[in-house]
Amino acid sequence: MEFTLRRLLGVKPPKASILLPFLAPILAVGSQQGDSSAAMDNVVTERMAEESHRQDSAYLLIFIMLLTLTILTIWLFKHRRFRFLHETGLAMIYGLLVGVILRYGIHVPQSMSDVVLECAVNASPATLLVNVSGRFYEYTLKGEVSRGKDHQVQDDEMLRKVTFDPEVFFNILLPPIIFHAGYSLKRRHFFRNIGSILAYAFIGTVISCFFIGLIMYGFVTFMKAVGQIGGDFFFTDCLFFGAIVSATDPVTVLAIFNELKVDVDLYALLFGESVLNDAVAIVLSSSIVAYQPAGDNSHSFEAMAMLKSFGVFLGVFSGSFSLGVANGVMTALVTKFTKLRDFPLLETGLFFLMSWSTFLLAEACGMTGVVAVLFCGITQAHYTYNNLSRESQDRTKQLFELLNFLAENVIFSYMGLTLFSFQSHVFNPMFIIGAFLAVFLGRAANIYPLSFLLNLGRRNKIGMNFQHVMMFAGLRGAMTFALSIRDTATYARQMMFSTTLLIVFFTVWICGGGTTPMLSFMSIPVGVDSDQEYSSSAVLDGSQRRSTKHESAWPFRIWYTFDHNYLKPLLTHSGPPLTATLPSCCGPLARCLSSPQAYENEGQLHDDDSDFILNDANVSSLYADVTVSTDASGSRTINPKPSAAGPFGENRDCELDQVEREVTIRGTRLVLPMDDPAEPPTTVTLPPPPSPPRSDPHRHRL
Amino acid sequence: MEFTLRRLLGVKPPKASILLPFLAPILAVGSQQGDSSAAMDNVVTERMAEESHRQDSAYLLIFIMLLTLTILTIWLFKHRRFRFLHETGLAMIYGLLVGVILRYGIHVPQSMSDVVLECAVNASPATLLVNVSGRFYEYTLKGEVSRGKDHQVQDDEMLRKVTFDPEVFFNILLPPIIFHAGYSLKRRHFFRNIGSILAYAFIGTVISCFFIGLIMYGFVTFMKAVGQIGGDFFFTDCLFFGAIVSATDPVTVLAIFNELKVDVDLYALLFGESVLNDAVAIVLSSSIVAYQPAGDNSHSFEAMAMLKSFGVFLGVFSGSFSLGVANGVMTALVTKFTKLRDFPLLETGLFFLMSWSTFLLAEACGMTGVVAVLFCGITQAHYTYNNLSRESQDRTKQLFELLNFLAENVIFSYMGLTLFSFQSHVFNPMFIIGAFLAVFLGRAANIYPLSFLLNLGRRNKIGMNFQHVMMFAGLRGAMTFALSIRDTATYARQMMFSTTLLIVFFTVWICGGGTTPMLSFMSIPVGVDSDQEYSSSAVLDGSQRRSTKHESAWPFRIWYTFDHNYLKPLLTHSGPPLTATLPSCCGPLARCLSSPQAYENEGQLHDDDSDFILNDANVSSLYADVTVSTDASGSRTINPKPSAAGPFGENRDCELDQVEREVTIRGTRLVLPMDDPAEPPTTVTLPPPPSPPRSDPHRHRL
Repeated sequence: MEFTLRRLLGVKPPKASILLPFLAPILAVGSQQGDSSAAMDNVVTERMAEESHRQDSAYLLIFIMLLTLTILTIWLFKHRRFRFLHETGLAMIYGLLVGVILRYGIHVPQSMSDVVLECAVNASPATLLVNVSGRFYEYTLKGEVSRGKDHQVQDDEMLRKVTFDPEVFFNILLPPIIFHAGYSLKRRHFFRNIGSILAYAFIGTVISCFFIGLIMYGFVTFMKAVGQIGGDFFFTDCLFFGAIVSATDPVTVLAIFNELKVDVDLYALLFGESVLNDAVAIVLSSSIVAYQPAGDNSHSFEAMAMLKSFGVFLGVFSGSFSLGVANGVMTALVTKFTKLRDFPLLETGLFFLMSWSTFLLAEACGMTGVVAVLFCGITQAHYTYNNLSRESQDRTKQLFELLNFLAENVIFSYMGLTLFSFQSHVFNPMFIIGAFLAVFLGRAANIYPLSFLLNLGRRNKIGMNFQHVMMFAGLRGAMTFALSIRDTATYARQMMFSTTLLIVFFTVWICGGGTTPMLSFMSIPVGVDSDQEYSSSAVLDGSQRRSTKHESAWPFRIWYTFDHNYLKPLLTHSGPPLTATLPSCCGPLARCLSSPQAYENEGQLHDDDSDFILNDANVSSLYADVTVSTDASGSRTINPKPSAAGPFGENRDCELDQVEREVTIRGTRLVLPMDDPAEPPTTVTLPPPPSPPRSDPHRHRL
Repeated sequence: MEFTLRRLLGVKPPKASILLPFLAPILAVGSQQGDSSAAMDNVVTERMAEESHRQDSAYLLIFIMLLTLTILTIWLFKHRRFRFLHETGLAMIYGLLVGVILRYGIHVPQSMSDVVLECAVNASPATLLVNVSGRFYEYTLKGEVSRGKDHQVQDDEMLRKVTFDPEVFFNILLPPIIFHAGYSLKRRHFFRNIGSILAYAFIGTVISCFFIGLIMYGFVTFMKAVGQIGGDFFFTDCLFFGAIVSATDPVTVLAIFNELKVDVDLYALLFGESVLNDAVAIVLSSSIVAYQPAGDNSHSFEAMAMLKSFGVFLGVFSGSFSLGVANGVMTALVTKFTKLRDFPLLETGLFFLMSWSTFLLAEACGMTGVVAVLFCGITQAHYTYNNLSRESQDRTKQLFELLNFLAENVIFSYMGLTLFSFQSHVFNPMFIIGAFLAVFLGRAANIYPLSFLLNLGRRNKIGMNFQHVMMFAGLRGAMTFALSIRDTATYARQMMFSTTLLIVFFTVWICGGGTTPMLSFMSIPVGVDSDQEYSSSAVLDGSQRRSTKHESAWPFRIWYTFDHNYLKPLLTHSGPPLTATLPSCCGPLARCLSSPQAYENEGQLHDDDSDFILNDANVSSLYADVTVSTDASGSRTINPKPSAAGPFGENRDCELDQVEREVTIRGTRLVLPMDDPAEPPTTVTLPPPPSPPRSDPHRHRL
């Protein structure tokens, strides 16, 4: 009988072969006795399995309780507007406490686990058939055990029981986090800053990786000379370390930014960079692992192997990228050309399954699922989201928000727990000091030079205070942890893992907690509402709206036009109809692919700004329906015309009361006097709206 | 290196010990060579693990694709209003097709899996340490393998790869289904019929179980006499079979009932019975397994063991029940006394975690998690739901709806697949005929006698046509399948499993598809809107509303009063304040426990009907705010007074526009002329409302 909970959660079984002592005598006499003993044997095995299932449930329960406690405490913090500790930081603290209790508070009687049984064969197959006095038992390979630590390890069976399989992080917990990051990446400011974001994410991460790798190599060489290091540590290990700690995860900082409404460009830069550099770091680290010189000396430099690694990087990255985008496009097409939107449950189910299948497809093809899922998420947000019914839009957003929330908190509380429950920590003070220094310098080598270069080309400069905040916000989080725990077999990897844990703790608690003081110290403007800024600066005369597009470099401009004129009309219901943008020879095809809704958008062919992705179809169609006027006192008048008689009239009808509100809020800005229109756009600080935007517009109707 | 996807999904590894042939030579020479061979060995092992991970992803992908296909097809069916095949039936068909393809379409080269390695030890510990030429590998016990089938089984490694661990159904797939059933069980008609539902679920299931068990025992005895049976089949096996096929799952029928708006009492009877009899069947089957006479002849009747089994039944059932209810109550208290409702994400997260912890807690205590989760779901719906913010109410409902949808379709498509992929089917025509007959008669022995007895006490009789429909709607589904696949070790269990599969196929396809014709043949009224019936018959003068309570037997009446006066005010924001219902000596305590909102409900102490659970607080508080009047033409006037200045004013404000709509729909019935008020309440058939209820009430305001 098999119990899956343990397998499901990858709770690790004991590393050593342990025979429960009460079982031993029964099994020892098993060969002499007949059928009744076998039956008893079965009963005992079943009881053992049940016991183990019960224990697994109890350990999992500890985790759930931990998360529940975290949620309640974080509610208290939010309720009291206490901003110095984010939920992830709190989850780590609770994890730490539970780790301490499990490690030092509870003692498992030694007698439970002291019989070791050995069996000598000359191979290590994946599955082993063991003949126990005529009965056959099947065993599966768990991995190699380093013999030296066996007896020490045996003591803490419980600690090993609360240890997840590292692959759980990669296959279960990271995908929803990364997908959610991609799916919520639809701020228009992301696309305004896409050049800079790509530079930070790609060039910056590679710089940071090699910079950290080199510094660490210096440290390690020095430590070897002093005799401070107790095992192998090669240059590739240093580079690997550089790659894993280059993945930033400023979730704490971004949460505070969101709450304080910090400048949207800064938010976009940080968020965009952190989302994309996860993908870069993961592919980079696997390319470094793939660096295998052919010769005997497997850790020397070799140009061919280096090139091969580079090829792996390009191949895996572009492969995962294409798979993710292709799956996103497919979902968009399916949701566009079926009327699945009439059944939100089916639609949400389909969306979830298609997104998940991206991960599996990429893994099945030998690509990186997490990277594919990220780009799938971005594509879904950019195209598919527009095709979903309003209810499915909410459902999918809320579903992935919840999954992200739970997964993130599991990872962070597990981080706290693992500081005490992990059995092979190697804390080397010198290495730790070196690592902190390297991480700091690596971040600086990423941000400052790149910002300088980017400012040469940017019209809207990245100020020094922004650069300092970006430097400061280089927290490490879930991705760094998942990458470092994935392989802790060698001495070097164990040292890396322990050091990484400390880096995550430090950055999340100290940098995360210091965000609010840092913002005021750097005099970063807070209270900027992106919607307000948008409506006031962009809708005002339409020229600044278009300026977003013209601000970007030409490759991005070409892409905008292509996306707006061809891709969006093809994949979604928004944008101009294809009949207007495609050459006339493609007429029949264009007619067949254009959505009936698109014809209504025909007028906006050149005026629309494609970087405002989310609601442009809704908003533009609503501009036709709603007349908004605002007087100076802030009272509003809306005169909705009867809903258009188009083929989608009945659908839009039920969306109206939600979208309308949005429009009202933006619309009221139209005639409000601006504070200082000449102020540079990066630091536009507008006063809060005169009446609370949450109030229902219907109530103010005359 | 461990790959978890396989373990996560419990995808079963090969039952025999297989050495990939290309690996064998390397391992064979491993003992003579030094370090470089070990490194190569490592690389090969890693490559093998990667390959296996890739395969697992691919097999999982097949499932996801299957579900995607099911969703798309079912959309087509719904779009075209084709009601003869439910999504679960369709999922089975697709599963069957994939099973056929995997079985007959694809052939794995034999050479891949033909080396068997054996290792003889004299015990079967949970973990084995294998010494392969100085290196230690850890193996874990997968279970016993019956030696005879080894070689035959080996052929179809792929088929075994797509086989889930049976415990996945119990620990992953069933809990969300059962929780969702409990969570959506808040139809007021459920409580009106609670006596009958409990009778069908408890007494009926036990009758059905023993009836089927006896008939099957007769058949098996006959088959033994004729020599038609190839293994042991005891009376306990027959009873076990009776228990597992007594769990009905009319999901197909209920979906059609919902769509056609079939009589609400019939719906409540069927739904309530099917939800509760799952719990009874699962505990019953485990009690039958626990029946272990002490003597040598382990299959004879023994009074003590029988009593013990009965004790197990009572203990496990009441234990699971209390755990589930206790956890639900705890969640209600937490959500009542914190202001978590300001943060819907945290609230939804907490709700999810608390509900999941019910399952784990029950399993950790040796109770039945699925049963605990069911009663937790009912408690959450009855109490906690009232405390949640409107957004969390939607989120939790939608989340569990989605989980239920996905889990159900996975189970049903897996059922189809398993008909071909399962390796040890035992199809015995005689047993199958006997089983179909027994299932039919068992259902009849449950429904007709019980209905007769219940009709003696019911004011509102269960008509013969209703009884025939209930008889017909005794489909078998997920629970029966999960119970039967859980243990397929013995000949008897294998035969049961194969037969159960056929029963599920038959009932889902034939009975499910025949529901619509059956309804018209039995002249069951369709198009009954429960809300309309409610508002017209109940709000009319308030007397029929109260009659619901008086209709029930006295124990239920006492419970209603207790629940309404003490439990609801204690656990939720609704109901009268405790200060009004508790004796005056408990004044301070009552004040401290009463929610401020409750004082507003004080007037409704005796008029409110506690079986209309969901929105009574909202509705009653809204009756004070909104004046609704309707003229004969169907145009409506609503005059919302300014929102009450109570402490919850701002919360209610944002709920208003959604609740208001509901009230309008009910409210318009107030002055509409009734068709025929004298008609008995079971068959009230009202015309559809004159204007579509979905239109926003605000639009019609003057």
